[in-house]
Amino acid sequence: MGDFSLKPDPKRIERDIETMATFVDRSKPGWTRRPFTPWYEQGRNWLRRQMLACGMEVEIDAASNLIGRIKGSEPHLPPIMIGSHTDTVTGGGRFDGIVGVLAGLEIARRLKETGTVLRHSLEVVDFTAEEPSEFGISTIGSRGMVNNLTEEMLNRRDMTGLTLREAIKRAGGDPERIGERSRKKGDVALYLELHIEQGPVLEQTDNKLGVVTGIVGIHRYRVVVEGKENHAGTTPMALRSDALTGASRLVLELESLCREPFAEPVVGTVGKLHVEPNAANVIPGRVVFELEVRSLDTELLEQIMLRFRKRASEIGESQTLNIRIDCLSKSEAIRVDERVQRVIAEACAATAKTVFLPSGAGHDANQLAKIAPIGMIFVPSRDGRSHCPEEWTDYGDIALGVEALARSLLSFDRLI
Amino acid sequence: MGDFSLKPDPKRIERDIETMATFVDRSKPGWTRRPFTPWYEQGRNWLRRQMLACGMEVEIDAASNLIGRIKGSEPHLPPIMIGSHTDTVTGGGRFDGIVGVLAGLEIARRLKETGTVLRHSLEVVDFTAEEPSEFGISTIGSRGMVNNLTEEMLNRRDMTGLTLREAIKRAGGDPERIGERSRKKGDVALYLELHIEQGPVLEQTDNKLGVVTGIVGIHRYRVVVEGKENHAGTTPMALRSDALTGASRLVLELESLCREPFAEPVVGTVGKLHVEPNAANVIPGRVVFELEVRSLDTELLEQIMLRFRKRASEIGESQTLNIRIDCLSKSEAIRVDERVQRVIAEACAATAKTVFLPSGAGHDANQLAKIAPIGMIFVPSRDGRSHCPEEWTDYGDIALGVEALARSLLSFDRLI
Repeated sequence: MGDFSLKPDPKRIERDIETMATFVDRSKPGWTRRPFTPWYEQGRNWLRRQMLACGMEVEIDAASNLIGRIKGSEPHLPPIMIGSHTDTVTGGGRFDGIVGVLAGLEIARRLKETGTVLRHSLEVVDFTAEEPSEFGISTIGSRGMVNNLTEEMLNRRDMTGLTLREAIKRAGGDPERIGERSRKKGDVALYLELHIEQGPVLEQTDNKLGVVTGIVGIHRYRVVVEGKENHAGTTPMALRSDALTGASRLVLELESLCREPFAEPVVGTVGKLHVEPNAANVIPGRVVFELEVRSLDTELLEQIMLRFRKRASEIGESQTLNIRIDCLSKSEAIRVDERVQRVIAEACAATAKTVFLPSGAGHDANQLAKIAPIGMIFVPSRDGRSHCPEEWTDYGDIALGVEALARSLLSFDRLI
Repeated sequence: MGDFSLKPDPKRIERDIETMATFVDRSKPGWTRRPFTPWYEQGRNWLRRQMLACGMEVEIDAASNLIGRIKGSEPHLPPIMIGSHTDTVTGGGRFDGIVGVLAGLEIARRLKETGTVLRHSLEVVDFTAEEPSEFGISTIGSRGMVNNLTEEMLNRRDMTGLTLREAIKRAGGDPERIGERSRKKGDVALYLELHIEQGPVLEQTDNKLGVVTGIVGIHRYRVVVEGKENHAGTTPMALRSDALTGASRLVLELESLCREPFAEPVVGTVGKLHVEPNAANVIPGRVVFELEVRSLDTELLEQIMLRFRKRASEIGESQTLNIRIDCLSKSEAIRVDERVQRVIAEACAATAKTVFLPSGAGHDANQLAKIAPIGMIFVPSRDGRSHCPEEWTDYGDIALGVEALARSLLSFDRLI
């Protein structure tokens, strides 16, 4: 495999990641680079200089995404796009998102160094604000690029009163022209993204690369369990309507349903739960929790929730509890086209040990999928950790990911 | 039963309760009369006037308890004491505690009106601050009376910085002389308390009066369940260490253990539970909850917790969770002397339909039990509710309780 012409420079990738890790808000834990902050701007300025240094044209689009472009030899072809993001969650790590943007940069450098000219133009994009932002919206830049930022979203304010519209403007965007300048179907030949897995599967199965089969749909619900608040000492066990024992049964019910051996994997989680009145000597009168289920097969999610509702109504009846289940949101699953998967899988297999897996998290690719075919490659996350200072991927593994991405790019450039 | 000489006046009791219900902090929900507040002082001033009006000697003791006294015909005998409290929880009701103090007042009036002279002196006590106070201590006055208020407790401060010592002083007490002036074994012939049940048993079994067999012991524990905080989308079900599913199993384990048919009733409750990081899309890494178990048979509580710990260690092992269980406090159970129960039961049976039952809540009687035999009578609580604005006991039922208390008093006055 040593003879691949665009083989990336692992040391350079390491230096790039470590440089990006210096542009962080040191008053926050871990590596924190929130969008629309000075540290975010510093990171982008550095990135822009690297793009210019390898001969890219650089622009900020209407949604404030930073885009580096290398012209292809056949100007009538739409561009192939490689992207991800450089913002982090508060107390996050050095790899989530950043790896994908720096992969694009490294490939652009290797193209220049080897004098390789692609048929398609190549666009390397640092999408603005992929993580949940202070405006209560995630994937802001990629939404904007595909005209999926509504007026309502643009008018939302952060804690300081700043609107998202104004924040995008300050970051160099042109919020009034987002719709007009957005990409439509056919404007992008293909979108590729390299990302850390943020889960334990590659590590546990001893693979270095993952071909993403799709991005799971997420269905979120709020569950309210109402029992009867009563004195913990004077109310016999048989005369209680304890909202917490009811909620506990529901939590375990969801776990049990999601552990069944379905054809397509499912995960279900209760991450947020609140007890009222939450006093040691009072039988809980009310428990509110949020549950989410994720799968590539959203029809399966509907079936699971149907069974969950049925069990909830049985539990409610047997414990004299009033249980209400309201849907908060449903995002559709995205399936990666099988031909795209096949090309990426060949590129990965030529590089390192590879497995197919779905993405359990959302990405900028979710938005780009609205206008273009997408493909994603995962590299391993140590202990499956992400969104925390412990987030880690070996630099050698990242270099393998960049190589597989470059191989995919060359294949697609020939094929599409 | 109509010929009982001390038969109380139900209308007067109703008026007394309604009058006490006017001395409340109207900025708070329900009926709120927190100790050491102007409303508390207003209530006590009114009560003092009623005591004086029926010929009682009134004093504030060193612990700031309000005591009305009627001398007996045999001055060498220690007094019989009837007591309870007039403070409430925030957002509480009109009956908890108040009923017991006003019962003592009504009996004193009936003694005067009928010219009845007892062998023993009768003391009617409004104990200071029975409910959990801003100093983190409950049964302050009764603790003080039996010399169970430590220096550490007296030096505790409320949110405004006021020490309990100073609060007791302002309420007319003499905090430096609490020990010296406290009651010792033999100083009180018998302590009697009429109280609302605060539970559903009397109502559900269609009884009007309850002879209290004892006051349950309470053992409290803090349970910390540590798993692994992980991404809810990217971590397969089989690779999770979910602290909340572990905690849910423990909550249900406690419920199941306490529902076993033991010879002595047991209740077990998880009332307070906190999830970390408590975000919808993060598998809970840590859950902390408080559990309590109550029974007259504290040996049984130890056995239950032994089995609970064993199950916790099995659950921890099977889910790769670290579970720590720390004891927070253990209060001993108090058993009412069987001869005392018998006398009270006869007095109750002569009044209305009666059942024996333990008290699941603590009372001022817990403290008095350190120096004297105690006895308690319960009247029904509608729907078992207490510590809330819905707290209710029919005035007719309260009058039955006062009559049973008066009959008990006359019997004991002859017998002891």
